[in-house]
Amino acid sequence: MVKTKRIPKATITRLSIYHRQLELLEFDGYRQVSSEKLAWLCQVSPAQVRKDLGYFGGFGVRGVGYDVIELQAQIREILALNKVWNLAVVGIGNLGSALLRSGSFAMRGFNCIAAFDKDPAKVGKPTSAGVPIRHVDELPTAVRDLQVDMGVITTPASAAQWVADMFVRGKVNAILNFSPTRIYVPDCCLVENIDFTIKLDILTYRLTHGSAN
Amino acid sequence: MVKTKRIPKATITRLSIYHRQLELLEFDGYRQVSSEKLAWLCQVSPAQVRKDLGYFGGFGVRGVGYDVIELQAQIREILALNKVWNLAVVGIGNLGSALLRSGSFAMRGFNCIAAFDKDPAKVGKPTSAGVPIRHVDELPTAVRDLQVDMGVITTPASAAQWVADMFVRGKVNAILNFSPTRIYVPDCCLVENIDFTIKLDILTYRLTHGSAN
Repeated sequence: MVKTKRIPKATITRLSIYHRQLELLEFDGYRQVSSEKLAWLCQVSPAQVRKDLGYFGGFGVRGVGYDVIELQAQIREILALNKVWNLAVVGIGNLGSALLRSGSFAMRGFNCIAAFDKDPAKVGKPTSAGVPIRHVDELPTAVRDLQVDMGVITTPASAAQWVADMFVRGKVNAILNFSPTRIYVPDCCLVENIDFTIKLDILTYRLTHGSAN
Repeated sequence: MVKTKRIPKATITRLSIYHRQLELLEFDGYRQVSSEKLAWLCQVSPAQVRKDLGYFGGFGVRGVGYDVIELQAQIREILALNKVWNLAVVGIGNLGSALLRSGSFAMRGFNCIAAFDKDPAKVGKPTSAGVPIRHVDELPTAVRDLQVDMGVITTPASAAQWVADMFVRGKVNAILNFSPTRIYVPDCCLVENIDFTIKLDILTYRLTHGSAN
């Protein structure tokens, strides 16, 4: 059983990265990996790897390292990736459509089961992934009926807060926000933001000034 | 003139967020904003806003706050967003196509001028955005000819490192990596990673364990 003391978010982020690299190692035929090699692959220090995994009880064997398949399974349990999570995507434009078609989401247990838009030309039609597009007004009822676990917002900034409010009304307590704005939700709801242009802005700053670490 | 002492990356990230909120404030008709209001909109503390802007010389007027348009211009200068940046996208699948069509990139001065793939069925055809798809073998030469500033990788994980190496050969010193793996580049090259599934993993962890801050 996994301990559930307060874990830094950076550790959770790195666990996800370790898991990804362990998948790639397994794919390449490796069965064991040292903390040094895993650290190098993930661009962190070996001490960091050991510390992160130490939060959950150490998993490695001294002098042997980690079992590539076993450690994956343990991280999957920690991150709760052993179940299927139902996602609803709102805003079926370029990005929303791409996410609905994404095989890598489904492969990782993230199942896009619902799609919403407000454009009458789109509502009622299936997406290219075969999910029917519903009117966003139906969202609070539909997400409850379909047992949606997470909402994904890919609308323009101007619609994002309204959509977030609809998810909260539908008792969806986790939101992945791709829209280029902050959204405000009650404490019971979790939000992760993904804003491409912030990353581009960081690159332009660093290209120009050569700093920011 | 902007000072160029070593600035924390978190400050640069927040400047990008402030800029976004200032755009929205301008759109809503505001001309002035207090550090308290800007802070609230960006979900940080007013002291943080003042500290971040203080790195570059304070821009506000005590008791009045910040000029919404002027502060935008100042942040644009700091982030080097006043010029057009040429982007090349590699991997013209769902996400790559969505980025090439994205109006919000172009609107912010990020111009996707080149597209690469290795699929013979795609090479030579224009993307839906009208950019011709070139074979990825041409990348090092083409990015130099086209004066590409930044590379965008939207390939599967297995191809990402090879593509990164091609960008380095073509003297592209900034990479936005959407592929779900880490890439290794010389120090002269900057990388920012965007990995959707890490964010999903954080949400599943937090939904399950109710922590990670």
